[in-house]
Amino acid sequence: MVRIPDDFLDVMDKKGYAHMATIGPKGEPHSSPVWYDWDGEHLLVSHTKERQKFANIQRDPRVALSILDPEDPYRFVEIRGSVEVIDDPEKTLIHKLAGKYQGKERYNDAPGNNRVIFKITPTRVVTH
Amino acid sequence: MVRIPDDFLDVMDKKGYAHMATIGPKGEPHSSPVWYDWDGEHLLVSHTKERQKFANIQRDPRVALSILDPEDPYRFVEIRGSVEVIDDPEKTLIHKLAGKYQGKERYNDAPGNNRVIFKITPTRVVTH
Repeated sequence: MVRIPDDFLDVMDKKGYAHMATIGPKGEPHSSPVWYDWDGEHLLVSHTKERQKFANIQRDPRVALSILDPEDPYRFVEIRGSVEVIDDPEKTLIHKLAGKYQGKERYNDAPGNNRVIFKITPTRVVTH
Repeated sequence: MVRIPDDFLDVMDKKGYAHMATIGPKGEPHSSPVWYDWDGEHLLVSHTKERQKFANIQRDPRVALSILDPEDPYRFVEIRGSVEVIDDPEKTLIHKLAGKYQGKERYNDAPGNNRVIFKITPTRVVTH
């Protein structure tokens, strides 16, 4: 595990977007923006089992995320790491993220979504 | 080649950041934010030969980019494509990008930087 430098920890608590890269079925990169939570050691991303990125992670758990400071795009954090997938039938994380990003108590999730948590342990961190 | 839908072309001309994912030496994803220009058919990114991403592209030209609308993060464009590397000894692209992003005539580039242009042809586009 690698630590985020102290002077960039503020970015981890802001309402930025993490652009998460995964490896697709033919070894090609994919990238999409996601909400994130930070527990002090891991980046937590809510996802559904129905989407492409879940299949990618099942095949190859390595991810990379880049996060701009939403208040200063010249500051950013790049994280590489590995994902542990945790079932989240109560949808706890997506509701928590709706609180962080939308100020709502609950996320208006589609009923059929099977939610999981991507718990990401950083193995390499670059800051600018 | 794949077209960007007309109702998202505005994002391609805004001062957003493209988070560009490449494949590292061990097949792992990398991600970092970059400035971009759009010529109507290709995404253009300025890079230097000295940095990791250049080595990644030499090995595997496949990239993915995700771009948030800087005025509305619920709108975004995901692009996958392939990079053609073009030498840019006059640093034309980075100076043009400094105009777009910083309102400057010239980019304050380090003298030793060997600039190239990543000319990215979209092969798959997803919009939200």
